[in-house]
Amino acid sequence: MSKVRAYISTSLDGYVAGPNESMEEPLGEGGERLHDWVVVLRAWREAQGMEGGEENASNAVVAEDNANLGAEIMGRGKFGPPNRGPWGDDPWRGWWGEDPPFHKPVFVLTHHEREPLTLSDTTFHFVTGGIESALERARESAGDKDILIGGGADVINQCLAAGLVDELQLHVVPIILGGGARLFEGVGPDVKLEQVSAIEAPGVTHVKYRVVK
Amino acid sequence: MSKVRAYISTSLDGYVAGPNESMEEPLGEGGERLHDWVVVLRAWREAQGMEGGEENASNAVVAEDNANLGAEIMGRGKFGPPNRGPWGDDPWRGWWGEDPPFHKPVFVLTHHEREPLTLSDTTFHFVTGGIESALERARESAGDKDILIGGGADVINQCLAAGLVDELQLHVVPIILGGGARLFEGVGPDVKLEQVSAIEAPGVTHVKYRVVK
Repeated sequence: MSKVRAYISTSLDGYVAGPNESMEEPLGEGGERLHDWVVVLRAWREAQGMEGGEENASNAVVAEDNANLGAEIMGRGKFGPPNRGPWGDDPWRGWWGEDPPFHKPVFVLTHHEREPLTLSDTTFHFVTGGIESALERARESAGDKDILIGGGADVINQCLAAGLVDELQLHVVPIILGGGARLFEGVGPDVKLEQVSAIEAPGVTHVKYRVVK
Repeated sequence: MSKVRAYISTSLDGYVAGPNESMEEPLGEGGERLHDWVVVLRAWREAQGMEGGEENASNAVVAEDNANLGAEIMGRGKFGPPNRGPWGDDPWRGWWGEDPPFHKPVFVLTHHEREPLTLSDTTFHFVTGGIESALERARESAGDKDILIGGGADVINQCLAAGLVDELQLHVVPIILGGGARLFEGVGPDVKLEQVSAIEAPGVTHVKYRVVK
């Protein structure tokens, strides 16, 4: 049965990006450190077509995160560029170069219409009808596979508040960002979660939750 | 070697008490649920002089939290009453009845002077000189034993920001409070932490951090 899932790295103070996102610091000031635990892993490097990397308890978690995904939904903030707004004559093609690491359809939430963009085996579809509309299209693409709500915070918070998420995996990193994009902002106590698992790994704790419907 | 430690239960959205603390809801709206995981435990019930209770992975964590403590520092908010202010003619004696569960000297941060209050084997000392002064007096009392920064959020945040904490244990509970007293508020990225351990238990994840000095 197809699930809607989200996974994201968060600081101890609940930020999934630091303050002042920019071209130089797409994840805001200090935000890059949210991913220190993952970029050293074999599982992550393999997904980027790179060799080597560490083997530890995080590998299985990353592999599970990325298994059985048929489509991803992301916010305009994640796709970029940081100044947002209309696409213009020479439209931004994402942060990931000519071979993005998604390998599946990606639905980008935006206020500005745009034709689909295909780079290697990833096609970005630009959806102006809001999250419900993006989810409908992602479901059509994904079939029996799961749909990833790929962030940023705004999109995950919207989906949680609307009861659209089935499973949430937090990668809790021992850093304090002191500002930025906060997970759970606007998500109230009516959203009920059940802890599924907690896994200790070097420099991170992985905690998975099921949303109780 | 004596350490300064803090442990506290936190919601997923980073609150250690819900909104609108009151006589009826000392931990704010929904805040009581932060302690659902602990009040069922044998280790917790024993500390309150009660029999029975569950045995699970949390028992060892609670036992470790409470081992080797020589003194506790708490905020006026934790001692109560919720309306704070001057003590008056019939001063508040805490939430815990005539046999409080501390069994050690407790230093209460307050703006209002007051003579010490002894209830059974717990003496509450009221400190008006701020956190550094409370810590000095707690150190004298505790000797070789550790000092607990017992909360609420304000006191722990002050101590973290001032570099006074050696070890922080978070009990992360799968609830969303949506408001209240937030941990890490005002604690910036200059405070560096190292993950020591993460333990999965029913309805809670225990993550311990060492503060890097």
